[in-house]
Amino acid sequence: MSDKNPPAGRMVDVSTKSVTLRSALATGFIALRKDTITKIEQGTLTKGDILATAQLAGVMAAKKTATLIPLCHPIPLTHIEVILTVHSDGIAARARTKTIDQTGVEMEALTAVAAACLTVYDMVKAHDRQAVIGPIKLQEKSGGKSGNYIRQ
Amino acid sequence: MSDKNPPAGRMVDVSTKSVTLRSALATGFIALRKDTITKIEQGTLTKGDILATAQLAGVMAAKKTATLIPLCHPIPLTHIEVILTVHSDGIAARARTKTIDQTGVEMEALTAVAAACLTVYDMVKAHDRQAVIGPIKLQEKSGGKSGNYIRQ
Amino acid sequence: MSDKNPPAGRMVDVSTKSVTLRSALATGFIALRKDTITKIEQGTLTKGDILATAQLAGVMAAKKTATLIPLCHPIPLTHIEVILTVHSDGIAARARTKTIDQTGVEMEALTAVAAACLTVYDMVKAHDRQAVIGPIKLQEKSGGKSGNYIRQ
Amino acid sequence: MSDKNPPAGRMVDVSTKSVTLRSALATGFIALRKDTITKIEQGTLTKGDILATAQLAGVMAAKKTATLIPLCHPIPLTHIEVILTVHSDGIAARARTKTIDQTGVEMEALTAVAAACLTVYDMVKAHDRQAVIGPIKLQEKSGGKSGNYIRQ
Amino acid sequence: MSDKNPPAGRMVDVSTKSVTLRSALATGFIALRKDTITKIEQGTLTKGDILATAQLAGVMAAKKTATLIPLCHPIPLTHIEVILTVHSDGIAARARTKTIDQTGVEMEALTAVAAACLTVYDMVKAHDRQAVIGPIKLQEKSGGKSGNYIRQ
Amino acid sequence: MSDKNPPAGRMVDVSTKSVTLRSALATGFIALRKDTITKIEQGTLTKGDILATAQLAGVMAAKKTATLIPLCHPIPLTHIEVILTVHSDGIAARARTKTIDQTGVEMEALTAVAAACLTVYDMVKAHDRQAVIGPIKLQEKSGGKSGNYIRQ
Repeated sequence: MSDKNPPAGRMVDVSTKSVTLRSALATGFIALRKDTITKIEQGTLTKGDILATAQLAGVMAAKKTATLIPLCHPIPLTHIEVILTVHSDGIAARARTKTIDQTGVEMEALTAVAAACLTVYDMVKAHDRQAVIGPIKLQEKSGGKSGNYIRQ
Repeated sequence: MSDKNPPAGRMVDVSTKSVTLRSALATGFIALRKDTITKIEQGTLTKGDILATAQLAGVMAAKKTATLIPLCHPIPLTHIEVILTVHSDGIAARARTKTIDQTGVEMEALTAVAAACLTVYDMVKAHDRQAVIGPIKLQEKSGGKSGNYIRQ
Repeated sequence: MSDKNPPAGRMVDVSTKSVTLRSALATGFIALRKDTITKIEQGTLTKGDILATAQLAGVMAAKKTATLIPLCHPIPLTHIEVILTVHSDGIAARARTKTIDQTGVEMEALTAVAAACLTVYDMVKAHDRQAVIGPIKLQEKSGGKSGNYIRQ
Repeated sequence: MSDKNPPAGRMVDVSTKSVTLRSALATGFIALRKDTITKIEQGTLTKGDILATAQLAGVMAAKKTATLIPLCHPIPLTHIEVILTVHSDGIAARARTKTIDQTGVEMEALTAVAAACLTVYDMVKAHDRQAVIGPIKLQEKSGGKSGNYIRQ
Repeated sequence: MSDKNPPAGRMVDVSTKSVTLRSALATGFIALRKDTITKIEQGTLTKGDILATAQLAGVMAAKKTATLIPLCHPIPLTHIEVILTVHSDGIAARARTKTIDQTGVEMEALTAVAAACLTVYDMVKAHDRQAVIGPIKLQEKSGGKSGNYIRQ
Repeated sequence: MSDKNPPAGRMVDVSTKSVTLRSALATGFIALRKDTITKIEQGTLTKGDILATAQLAGVMAAKKTATLIPLCHPIPLTHIEVILTVHSDGIAARARTKTIDQTGVEMEALTAVAAACLTVYDMVKAHDRQAVIGPIKLQEKSGGKSGNYIRQ
């Protein structure tokens, strides 16, 4: 097709890339007030079990990545794991994704982490509207032509 | 990742499982009143062609299984067949699903059957609100490490 | 439009129905082996926290009802509650749905219950493939021209 | 399964077909008034950047094809490109889709083109309600048992 | 917000528009070969009941309009009707949509018609790859500030 | 329902809350390398028009909020605006959302911002894998019983 194409409408052609095991790890954080942390640990926030809900939200969002990120390839994920841990100043999220495919799963891991953090916000917001999401980062990726990546 | 992970956020890692032909067969039933059956056979229920609609609903739901069942793997199905048959006391549904993949298609067959039965309910409910859905069962599965299964 | 329309393609016109509070209650069941129940109570099934996962699956499925059931109206639900309780022979599910709208929420409650039971099956299936889903029933509905309904 | 199945509920079994590179090219058109074309070229239509928006809509719709077309197989697309070009009497759309799979991607290319044209209509409709969509056609397909096709 | 916004990211603000009954009627066509028409009338095309399937596809697509057309408002439709009729040279589709809302349902009617025509193509394509979709047009709309519209 | 309900399965009942105009404003940021900013301004990143794509992704994600955040109410949004602006050290995103409904639109604004930032990451990642998303914050909300909120 011609060069005159405005650039927005193209999902990169990965037809000739190798099918390999590809893996990614992303992390995120949501900063919360001390008393919000206390309520989460006591289970007294009214909207429910925050960690379980946010972890599941992360898993399910990873499976929807290609419908959320316009130029992402649809990928049949072989593994998703989302872990939330409570810290003294907030909740940390980690997501691991894997596939055997022609393109990588970084966006799936990042989307899982973002959805998990958004879900925490939804569940604490009546109590802690100032909660702040971030940083969300890719920590590692492996598989694929561009090689492995580990954040320094 | 650590053992402290609450268990909800993990879709099992199937990255190292074999890619094989996998197939499943599930059945379901919705019990209806005698006069509801008569109206279905006469085509006089106002909401439309129940069997065709419910069969299509089953096929389309099978394709959405991974978005409905939180820890299900997304699977590119190679075959779906949903058949509804009218009996004297209700409608029976059967769904066959297949894939060439690393994990099985039992949930897709069960989801198809459930969606087909729910769709029948939707179409008869103005007339027969007491209709009861069930039993929904896996009848067979083949392919995969755990071997074949046929319900006794 | 003409009478020649084949019946499958029509979502009933509710444009002139009253906007009222509408509520529904549905129940479902999944029969499990005794030792499966024991494992659920001990939390030793490997796929995770079954009750929390299945309850969330039910809530999320209720919001997708109109995309699953072909002739269902899209409805902005104002409330969904899905409760699973462990019995000696299986798990019982109850779903309550509400809206302020022109049509009822029975299908949303039934869909929530079906998705919750399917999710339980997904999480026990490696251990208890014979588990059977059903009966799934509407227990109550209120609001709307056809009046209230309570199953006898 | 038996012959008595009403025909609507069956997605063709492609389990034994070859995994090959499959490609399709579809085109579409939306006829617009001269002054609408002028406004698009001047960027003075209030609803936004029509070409970029419609191209993205096409790409995203291609990824949803199997949820829109009831008997379409879900396919992990490896490439989508949607190009819109402004002509003196309307906007032309072209979509190229590819996969490495057991079944073809014609419907994905056609769905992309249809969604792009619908999006253009949405963005011009306050100004040019008479705009007409069509013709939408498959131009080429390659890969698969039925061989290549090029429209004459 | 400022004028510097690139135009693609804005769904028009309808917050202050009146809630009224809004209705739209769209039509479409898919041109088919004579022998394809014959096969449809005889029910001998292998992929199933074309009219019922395409009508349902249209109804279900109408409910997904806001997820397909980027700047469309999500609208709780109160009515959808999709009718397909067989002509000597193809199949004609008509879709009627209604809502009680702050914005109109033209895009829903057009999307229904497009999805119905695409579904017909999917079901005849093994036999009649040259089939052409179009014209797709808005025929009428009523309700809303811009008044009624009837195509001349 | 009883107190024994595990807390995850409940979407808060808003049936008796007032229907009012509700609005929210959220912001986000993605930190990028200097040379990445330069490439974006020159339009030389290969994956396309980053700002237009990310803005549309934000708008479309806002409409999917209730399918991503498990306990969010489905809300017919009346307005979404997503603006991205290029700074010397990254891209800032702002999202405004509105509805006339019984519950607020904070999660929709935050989801829009998160999706926009994720989309930027997707489009720069081949060049700038270290890009970091955050902070994502609610800036304002208005409407509803809990009153207005403006972040200090």
